[in-house]
Amino acid sequence: MKVLTFGEILLRLAAPGYTRLFQKDSLEASFCGAEANVAVSLALFGIDTAYITKLPGNDVGRAAVNSLRSFGVDTGRIVYGDGRMGLYYLEKGASQRSGKVVYDRAYSVITQAGREDFDWDALLEGVGWFHWTGITPALSEGLAGICMDACEAARKKGITVSCDLNYRKTLWAPEKAGAVMVPLMEYVDVCIANEEDADKVLGIRPEDNHVESGELNRAGYESVAKEICERYGCRYAAVTMRESYDASVNGWSAMLYSREKGRAYFSRRYEIRIVDRVGGGDSFAAGLIYGLLSGKEEQAALEFAAAASCLKHTIEGDYNRVSVVEVEALLENGGHGRVQR
Amino acid sequence: MKVLTFGEILLRLAAPGYTRLFQKDSLEASFCGAEANVAVSLALFGIDTAYITKLPGNDVGRAAVNSLRSFGVDTGRIVYGDGRMGLYYLEKGASQRSGKVVYDRAYSVITQAGREDFDWDALLEGVGWFHWTGITPALSEGLAGICMDACEAARKKGITVSCDLNYRKTLWAPEKAGAVMVPLMEYVDVCIANEEDADKVLGIRPEDNHVESGELNRAGYESVAKEICERYGCRYAAVTMRESYDASVNGWSAMLYSREKGRAYFSRRYEIRIVDRVGGGDSFAAGLIYGLLSGKEEQAALEFAAAASCLKHTIEGDYNRVSVVEVEALLENGGHGRVQR
Amino acid sequence: MKVLTFGEILLRLAAPGYTRLFQKDSLEASFCGAEANVAVSLALFGIDTAYITKLPGNDVGRAAVNSLRSFGVDTGRIVYGDGRMGLYYLEKGASQRSGKVVYDRAYSVITQAGREDFDWDALLEGVGWFHWTGITPALSEGLAGICMDACEAARKKGITVSCDLNYRKTLWAPEKAGAVMVPLMEYVDVCIANEEDADKVLGIRPEDNHVESGELNRAGYESVAKEICERYGCRYAAVTMRESYDASVNGWSAMLYSREKGRAYFSRRYEIRIVDRVGGGDSFAAGLIYGLLSGKEEQAALEFAAAASCLKHTIEGDYNRVSVVEVEALLENGGHGRVQR
Amino acid sequence: MKVLTFGEILLRLAAPGYTRLFQKDSLEASFCGAEANVAVSLALFGIDTAYITKLPGNDVGRAAVNSLRSFGVDTGRIVYGDGRMGLYYLEKGASQRSGKVVYDRAYSVITQAGREDFDWDALLEGVGWFHWTGITPALSEGLAGICMDACEAARKKGITVSCDLNYRKTLWAPEKAGAVMVPLMEYVDVCIANEEDADKVLGIRPEDNHVESGELNRAGYESVAKEICERYGCRYAAVTMRESYDASVNGWSAMLYSREKGRAYFSRRYEIRIVDRVGGGDSFAAGLIYGLLSGKEEQAALEFAAAASCLKHTIEGDYNRVSVVEVEALLENGGHGRVQR
Amino acid sequence: MKVLTFGEILLRLAAPGYTRLFQKDSLEASFCGAEANVAVSLALFGIDTAYITKLPGNDVGRAAVNSLRSFGVDTGRIVYGDGRMGLYYLEKGASQRSGKVVYDRAYSVITQAGREDFDWDALLEGVGWFHWTGITPALSEGLAGICMDACEAARKKGITVSCDLNYRKTLWAPEKAGAVMVPLMEYVDVCIANEEDADKVLGIRPEDNHVESGELNRAGYESVAKEICERYGCRYAAVTMRESYDASVNGWSAMLYSREKGRAYFSRRYEIRIVDRVGGGDSFAAGLIYGLLSGKEEQAALEFAAAASCLKHTIEGDYNRVSVVEVEALLENGGHGRVQR
Amino acid sequence: MKVLTFGEILLRLAAPGYTRLFQKDSLEASFCGAEANVAVSLALFGIDTAYITKLPGNDVGRAAVNSLRSFGVDTGRIVYGDGRMGLYYLEKGASQRSGKVVYDRAYSVITQAGREDFDWDALLEGVGWFHWTGITPALSEGLAGICMDACEAARKKGITVSCDLNYRKTLWAPEKAGAVMVPLMEYVDVCIANEEDADKVLGIRPEDNHVESGELNRAGYESVAKEICERYGCRYAAVTMRESYDASVNGWSAMLYSREKGRAYFSRRYEIRIVDRVGGGDSFAAGLIYGLLSGKEEQAALEFAAAASCLKHTIEGDYNRVSVVEVEALLENGGHGRVQR
Repeated sequence: MKVLTFGEILLRLAAPGYTRLFQKDSLEASFCGAEANVAVSLALFGIDTAYITKLPGNDVGRAAVNSLRSFGVDTGRIVYGDGRMGLYYLEKGASQRSGKVVYDRAYSVITQAGREDFDWDALLEGVGWFHWTGITPALSEGLAGICMDACEAARKKGITVSCDLNYRKTLWAPEKAGAVMVPLMEYVDVCIANEEDADKVLGIRPEDNHVESGELNRAGYESVAKEICERYGCRYAAVTMRESYDASVNGWSAMLYSREKGRAYFSRRYEIRIVDRVGGGDSFAAGLIYGLLSGKEEQAALEFAAAASCLKHTIEGDYNRVSVVEVEALLENGGHGRVQR
Repeated sequence: MKVLTFGEILLRLAAPGYTRLFQKDSLEASFCGAEANVAVSLALFGIDTAYITKLPGNDVGRAAVNSLRSFGVDTGRIVYGDGRMGLYYLEKGASQRSGKVVYDRAYSVITQAGREDFDWDALLEGVGWFHWTGITPALSEGLAGICMDACEAARKKGITVSCDLNYRKTLWAPEKAGAVMVPLMEYVDVCIANEEDADKVLGIRPEDNHVESGELNRAGYESVAKEICERYGCRYAAVTMRESYDASVNGWSAMLYSREKGRAYFSRRYEIRIVDRVGGGDSFAAGLIYGLLSGKEEQAALEFAAAASCLKHTIEGDYNRVSVVEVEALLENGGHGRVQR
Repeated sequence: MKVLTFGEILLRLAAPGYTRLFQKDSLEASFCGAEANVAVSLALFGIDTAYITKLPGNDVGRAAVNSLRSFGVDTGRIVYGDGRMGLYYLEKGASQRSGKVVYDRAYSVITQAGREDFDWDALLEGVGWFHWTGITPALSEGLAGICMDACEAARKKGITVSCDLNYRKTLWAPEKAGAVMVPLMEYVDVCIANEEDADKVLGIRPEDNHVESGELNRAGYESVAKEICERYGCRYAAVTMRESYDASVNGWSAMLYSREKGRAYFSRRYEIRIVDRVGGGDSFAAGLIYGLLSGKEEQAALEFAAAASCLKHTIEGDYNRVSVVEVEALLENGGHGRVQR
Repeated sequence: MKVLTFGEILLRLAAPGYTRLFQKDSLEASFCGAEANVAVSLALFGIDTAYITKLPGNDVGRAAVNSLRSFGVDTGRIVYGDGRMGLYYLEKGASQRSGKVVYDRAYSVITQAGREDFDWDALLEGVGWFHWTGITPALSEGLAGICMDACEAARKKGITVSCDLNYRKTLWAPEKAGAVMVPLMEYVDVCIANEEDADKVLGIRPEDNHVESGELNRAGYESVAKEICERYGCRYAAVTMRESYDASVNGWSAMLYSREKGRAYFSRRYEIRIVDRVGGGDSFAAGLIYGLLSGKEEQAALEFAAAASCLKHTIEGDYNRVSVVEVEALLENGGHGRVQR
Repeated sequence: MKVLTFGEILLRLAAPGYTRLFQKDSLEASFCGAEANVAVSLALFGIDTAYITKLPGNDVGRAAVNSLRSFGVDTGRIVYGDGRMGLYYLEKGASQRSGKVVYDRAYSVITQAGREDFDWDALLEGVGWFHWTGITPALSEGLAGICMDACEAARKKGITVSCDLNYRKTLWAPEKAGAVMVPLMEYVDVCIANEEDADKVLGIRPEDNHVESGELNRAGYESVAKEICERYGCRYAAVTMRESYDASVNGWSAMLYSREKGRAYFSRRYEIRIVDRVGGGDSFAAGLIYGLLSGKEEQAALEFAAAASCLKHTIEGDYNRVSVVEVEALLENGGHGRVQR
Repeated sequence: MKVLTFGEILLRLAAPGYTRLFQKDSLEASFCGAEANVAVSLALFGIDTAYITKLPGNDVGRAAVNSLRSFGVDTGRIVYGDGRMGLYYLEKGASQRSGKVVYDRAYSVITQAGREDFDWDALLEGVGWFHWTGITPALSEGLAGICMDACEAARKKGITVSCDLNYRKTLWAPEKAGAVMVPLMEYVDVCIANEEDADKVLGIRPEDNHVESGELNRAGYESVAKEICERYGCRYAAVTMRESYDASVNGWSAMLYSREKGRAYFSRRYEIRIVDRVGGGDSFAAGLIYGLLSGKEEQAALEFAAAASCLKHTIEGDYNRVSVVEVEALLENGGHGRVQR
């Protein structure tokens, strides 16, 4: 069964090491994007995965496709057109200095796309699971419509739909996000969020919010997930719980609520010395999709997803360059740090 | 007397060495733009030079300004606004493989600028020479109007105006270029062109055009320059003559026509092993402005400009990082290649 | 119609720039191998191409596969097994200093492979053209047998077989090469060689050999190719003609003899300032296969191949990272070196 | 009101990453110096800042000037002369391995300068605040005299004078330092020190010194600052309090004593995972000058300075590449480490 | 008195920074090997040290020798022969992601060596201490015999023999290791092990093993060392005690048991933020040999060794690039992290 | 028989690639110096070679020694003292842009050395050939005296003395050079010069000097060499003949005059595409010493030296990293540029 993810892929231009943007005379080039990150991770987990986007047919677009192909992602359904490709500049944070992302994604070819660009009936051929995130409909009116088209086509074909809410305040305001996302939520089987997403996009808040204080509010997270499932009929709602002490060390754990089971599962908690936190949420989504797809029990699927995303934080770039074997090794040995010889 | 140049500054992202774009995982970041290149070169020649553009106030825009400031260019007149900064990807050519530029400059903040953004009366305060190129009015209707405003204000203040035609076929078609540029030519005192520019923008062709054959048509170049001077009332028309054998070795020389003297001057010819040819024309413009401004005779001013631009071809990046002393040393010793100890 | 190539892929560890091996503290890592190079070039030309080899399933083997996949090569038929992957250290030459390759390919997993590892009936499924080189049977007795198996299976299926003789004196002596290659030649439809190959492997020499003198012996080359076609029944024999003045500049041209037409075709000659000459012959093979496969006339197919391999010499790495459009542009404009904007 | 800083600027040649000096074949080149660091930081805070030094007019000296100009520092008052520029080699520490600085600053052009090189009446034109450090008079007899000239001229013009004691045991012994610095202290309005400085230069020690034990002696620091103010008539004495556990993690906080208010203020304390600690004290000085100059209350000025210097520790290079907005963001959110998008 | 170490030297190809293998397009090249690491460290401590191995006479072998020579190791006794040099690929771990070593050392020239290649009578000329590790006899039957030859020759000459058990599960199984190593142990005067080594090679286990739990079992370590001394007649048995929390932070300490004194000594414990942990055990061995050779008391020798190996963890590469002065500075100041100026 | 060379070793800080100094943020660090270059080349030719200098005992000095040791140069006679090490900044030239060296060697520890620092009786123990250059006595009065001491001691011991005049106009004027060098010439057996050296140092000019015109004046060179031999009693005088067309391509050949044979020998001429020309003369000196030492006839010794120095121009860095085998291969095949596999 093929997994398909859909969204925008960006060129990521990162300042080397812990330098500030343009402090050095080179930028490290890689490719990324919430849904592309999920596709790459799933392909590395051995899942047959395709990725759809719209790209310019120039050197930049081709390089993005080549990057995806190198991981075994099926890029044959990508749509091409004239225009630019979005990008962002990344500066990694350290200690008290926050990381920084400067987006230059406006006017990209996919944000100019029309509903006619994507023939979902054909594109979803042979697909069993469809994943998208809240970033995509935030990018343009056209893309909001295209997301709706995709969801409807998926529903008709009985395809499982997962969505990571992924609220970005620089893309849209909460009201706008809610207006677009709520109708789309009707099609979502598996919803992934963090606390901020649920609040800003869906207006769902935990009863007692201490996220700023650094302490985790487990009951609050559970109530949010339960409410998502009940309000929109999702089978699962998952919440990632980042404790952001500073830019170098974070706590990381996650929760999964099953509507069917009527209960929440909590993962192990990791204290991570961060190499690169961008793409952390996407690696969780990929891990969860893998876990559920491969028939794991809820607790096991969640643990897999949390461990996978823990490893992502230790890897440069947005992509979670880890295998199933490596995720399972972390689950078994707890990350003892011995050299694998 | 201050020189002011006006145009768009771009981020240049170059593939390292002779690799193809995105073959390596880093890109070399610098800043460039026809008019910024001229400003930097003039500042390095010791001329009091200011540069005007419109930039976003983010990390990319600030880095561009910092780059200009490091050369001593006065950046205090730059206008800021929200939006993106243009950029281009560069792949250097070698031997039979041509170099390649992939532009991503559409929708940049300066192309969205309106005539109200630039108060030329204030901006031209204290300026004695104003330089722009044909790229700027090609970028948007707004910029075409802004160029006209600038030229009119300069004329009123008795400021010398120089323009490098700089025809770019990806920015506009010859008809459009002519329609916009011809009225602007009325304000130009010093016009710089290569053979293609004069043809495409002004419809002026040499009597016998052998540019593709590699052989230089000196009489033809002279006729073009003379026609420019006579038709638009320019004091000077200069033509750069590139013999592009391949991407690694070029012949390079230039011609200057003086309407007053009624004759053409031809520079020495250089056979150049190219390090980086981008910015070659801009370095000629800067050299010519310097030569004329500093009171050199026509032949000397032209030789200075040709030698300066010869050196540019041996330097990485768009900017011509050379001093007057270095240009003069080349004129004296013919580039014998001995190490300066 | 799918093209399949078969051989060993190696890790290439190159000293940076023009430094000597281990002068600097890093090595540039890429992947290469005569047949893999052909596969990558064909995939970039838009041909559906698969590559077969035997690799270890470790990080190095996977990286090799990822590299191939990034170009769109079908890697699904690759065989895996325990062991090591071959590699070579490369030092680029310059001027009078020759380049240098230090092989460390002995005992690689593919050289230990047995005939049972490759089920050619299955592997050649859907294949229309099969390409291999004389390096493969030189690597081990097992591989010589595996080549014979592949050729026989291809013959049965009516698949076109091309072979680049690619004599390597460090792998085998002329007598051994002849003993193994002559029986395999019976299956070859398109034979590619340089003068040394034909002499050392097949014992075929031009009537008047001046290869050391630098002057090309066109009649000699033609006689060699004709003899190959007649002796082994090949449809085509192609010869690449390198004039190696020094490590920085080479003359490059090629010849194609058609048995059917009974005549030889000679390509344009290129004087190349070399960026990286390794893989030059492979890029010619890929160009020729593309030319013949796409139905070009002999002269046109040969010109395409020669131009493609000319461009390869201007590109870092073994792979010929060029498109059909770029090869055709060189054929049209002769490599004038102007920047493509 | 212009701030002027005066001292030596050095070329900093740093071993890459955490390698030892000359372990790798390249060195990272940047420019630095206690007073230049202060000038850059103030310029980045938006203060009109000039820097004075004496430099050679060669490529190294010009590069230093260009570096300062890129941050907007006014370099127009710099004096030039023949000679060498000082430099230092830097090896960053990690964990139990201390960082290391190998100075090569002897005989630099500024240390050979005479009092006639600096016409302080002209150089202090338009200046409102003059900053220097104890490193400068330590470099040579000539510079000690030049510092005295500068202080006297500043006093005459009513310019505020700040001084960071910055004791360096490789430059002078405590007795010599005291003999030179005590007369200069009479001109200092704002004195910055750490515990070692006050002891070695001025012979002022806290009542109960536990600096080696790692525990902070707040009362002791206060007594030192008070004594400085009272003995030399300073308006303010500030003390930075570094808790150096190892080369990777430090505690960092600071204290400000106001003679007028007759009390000490203590800043928030930061636990910093260090990227680069060199320049930490200079960034505090710049932050304090900014805070006092911009009219903040004592507590607020001190908090700004401590937060600014906390951020410096997370940035590569001596310069504190942060803006006022970024310092204020840390003060507001405590450095939670979330990515700024 | 000369120290001689004997074993295999490998090319180490490390992924840059915290990237995964082949994520970047370059690999960092250095040389290493347990016994070569000891030789380099001893040479840096000022001990006259020679290293013996068998190497190919090609560019790779020569580069390995050059690397050793740069540290002052006497390489005049190295044996040369045709063949390949072993290598390994290294990926550094971070946080929960373990580091990874991919060996490609099979078939190296030394593993093909015969007993006749090494004339130990001549090779041990002038040697006072001979050091080897359990990796060497694990590499081939031939090397096991060669180790026996060396040990017997050393015994005859009254040379002190030290051995680091260094069990590697990818080289041999415990049974095989025991069968080969036990007879060799008869010649060992100083035995170095960690808990796993003693168990897997000699079958000696602490009474109460909690190594996986992270808590140290001091009594257990002591019992292991005592048993080694008593069973094989060693003068000293030393045990390194790593607490591997994760790949970024480890606890590190060591124990030395003296048969003569009949008691164990325990070193200070270090909490290390790891830069590169490969070679940590070898640096301990070198420190211990230095300590014992230079006549330190047991406690002092052990502290020196533990401090030396603590510093190794903060240095890139296998080699412990530290001097005696630096080790002693750590012992004195506890690694306070202040910059040495 | 040991060869000893004596002089100053410098840190070379080169701008990467063809960038201008400080255009990039790193400098490439290596070590060099006329006599150190000769020592390294001789050691690579298999000659037992020692190098003497005076160095600081800090990280920079040690790195210089380590560099020499890596090539097998005997560094045991080097003298240490407090102070700085000299360095130079290098910018490579290209085409018409000359390369550039910015020296920062004043006040280095060796220039401060006194005659008592060097006990030549001991230092020349076991030495058969002593090589120095005209740079050394130019550095200070002290060094001029030390050179005289060395020459006298060598003469007493019957050691062959070679000297490369190596005139540097930035170190001394012709009059001063002559005053110091002429007395030293009395001790020189083998003198190496280029045309400028002989003129500026010894006042010997060819009868008809066309060196600026690019055409070689063979008779003129011969007359210079003959005059040197006759005037100072040298056995050999050699002259290198560089035809410096530009910074990228040079002609290169050499001449050797034998006083005994009473005739001149001229080498083959090489047209070199330059990678790095610094150290070219030193590599010739090393080649000539090797040729004469190894008993070659004059023509053969000269050809070896010319070929060795031809290769140096194709290698990055001052050191001529080539073996005797490689030099001989060039002599045999003329540098045909084929890859050595």
